[in-house]
Amino acid sequence: MRYHVDGDLVDAEDATVSVRDRGFQYGDAAFETLRAYGGQTFAWVAHHRRLEATCDALGIDHDFDSGALRGRVHETLAANDLTEAYVRLSITRGVQDGRLAPRENADPTVVVVVDPLPKGGVDGERVWNAPADVQTTTVRPTPDATIPSNAKTHNYLPGVLGRIDAEDADEALFVDDDGHVTEGASSNLFFVDDGTLYTPSTDLDVLPGVTRWAVTELAADLGIPVETGRYDLGDLYAADEAFLTNTTWEVRPIARVDDTSYSTCKVGAALAHEYAREVERRHY
Amino acid sequence: MRYHVDGDLVDAEDATVSVRDRGFQYGDAAFETLRAYGGQTFAWVAHHRRLEATCDALGIDHDFDSGALRGRVHETLAANDLTEAYVRLSITRGVQDGRLAPRENADPTVVVVVDPLPKGGVDGERVWNAPADVQTTTVRPTPDATIPSNAKTHNYLPGVLGRIDAEDADEALFVDDDGHVTEGASSNLFFVDDGTLYTPSTDLDVLPGVTRWAVTELAADLGIPVETGRYDLGDLYAADEAFLTNTTWEVRPIARVDDTSYSTCKVGAALAHEYAREVERRHY
Repeated sequence: MRYHVDGDLVDAEDATVSVRDRGFQYGDAAFETLRAYGGQTFAWVAHHRRLEATCDALGIDHDFDSGALRGRVHETLAANDLTEAYVRLSITRGVQDGRLAPRENADPTVVVVVDPLPKGGVDGERVWNAPADVQTTTVRPTPDATIPSNAKTHNYLPGVLGRIDAEDADEALFVDDDGHVTEGASSNLFFVDDGTLYTPSTDLDVLPGVTRWAVTELAADLGIPVETGRYDLGDLYAADEAFLTNTTWEVRPIARVDDTSYSTCKVGAALAHEYAREVERRHY
Repeated sequence: MRYHVDGDLVDAEDATVSVRDRGFQYGDAAFETLRAYGGQTFAWVAHHRRLEATCDALGIDHDFDSGALRGRVHETLAANDLTEAYVRLSITRGVQDGRLAPRENADPTVVVVVDPLPKGGVDGERVWNAPADVQTTTVRPTPDATIPSNAKTHNYLPGVLGRIDAEDADEALFVDDDGHVTEGASSNLFFVDDGTLYTPSTDLDVLPGVTRWAVTELAADLGIPVETGRYDLGDLYAADEAFLTNTTWEVRPIARVDDTSYSTCKVGAALAHEYAREVERRHY
């Protein structure tokens, strides 16, 4: 594999950042996970907008416009002859001297890592092999006042610790101090009750996922009522069905949350199909 | 400069970690900041104990015993002909595949970065040039339930954001949701009132600083009563004096917190002197 690091395409074994890069020392970096279908990244504009929101939240100034960043992603895909791929695009604050307070004359480091994925779309293959087994974790989500919840950063330990805590489950589910379900360690949560689709509000400590957004748009197209709000585990356990969304999983049905099993995922399946059709329309 | 990376001493410009190292991708790493005086690290045992506590909190398994890690630090100092230095020692979870849940067969990466510092001790030079100007920040400390507070990790963005928020101040001071002062972005807080030394309890979201511990020991030696507890900004503003501690600053008097100025730092100066004497006794 070849990756894109600080302006150059390099072999994976040479793809490194300085040990003094703040992205390494402090997790002082923004990132996006994207998915390429047919050689093009899905929902680039939405991902780029969130990447900018993260950079704004962290005060990372950089000179890379949307086209320049997208260009690096596409160069990386081309260098690996990949059309179907997982893409991780990071912008770090770069190498600075030893002080914690960032310098103004930053020189950000841009990193693009890719991995092959199966083809998507209606006849594509899912990247997961079964509906998700979900376990709530006692690890609490990072409060918005600690790190803004709309920022996707390299400070990802709560997700890592949540997954460790959830042991063999496919995903860890965060619940905040007030008992509200928020999100998965690397996914957004949806559930369906009496035909209405519910997802935790971004007023909570929830990352505004791009797939979350796409799925709510598709639900509106299908005439499915969507509500965002504050829900507790009781609401989730009592739901007819539930599913998770993220860029690589797309729409992944939930088989179980803790001791509650779901025997159906009809609305989720309909949305997964619409999502696949949308991918098909745009990329194949 | 030469740094120690994954077992090798390398020139600073070649001191890098893989872009797939989890220390970079997720801040999934433990670290310690140490200070070397006369060629030896101060309070190695306490730093090593906390590093192990951090690795335990993160579930990072590694085979490096205290002697092996200390050896790498000393090799790095020797390779740079340094006896007086800042040392940053990190253990990351290493390079693994793209999944968020860590694999058991981890191959941790050890990194040692050093920087020259002036000589310490009684006749030494301080690394700061004036008492600290401190500003409380609206950024909230990371709750213990999100990342254990006794863990010193590469998830350091709240400190970075605090410093940005505190603008030109020398240090940002965290206050938790209940109004209790906790710690600085990279220091512990002490204040003195009517001859008693107070510092926020580690029951709060406070890192148990090694210098914090050393200073409380020295205060006991000097017969200064020490109390730990929950204090609000009013307690701090009303204090006779206040100071900060960390490994590189040692004991740094506070000139100002927000709109409150302190005209004296007698107890702080006595403790700074005792600390310097302790350094002198152990290292010169």
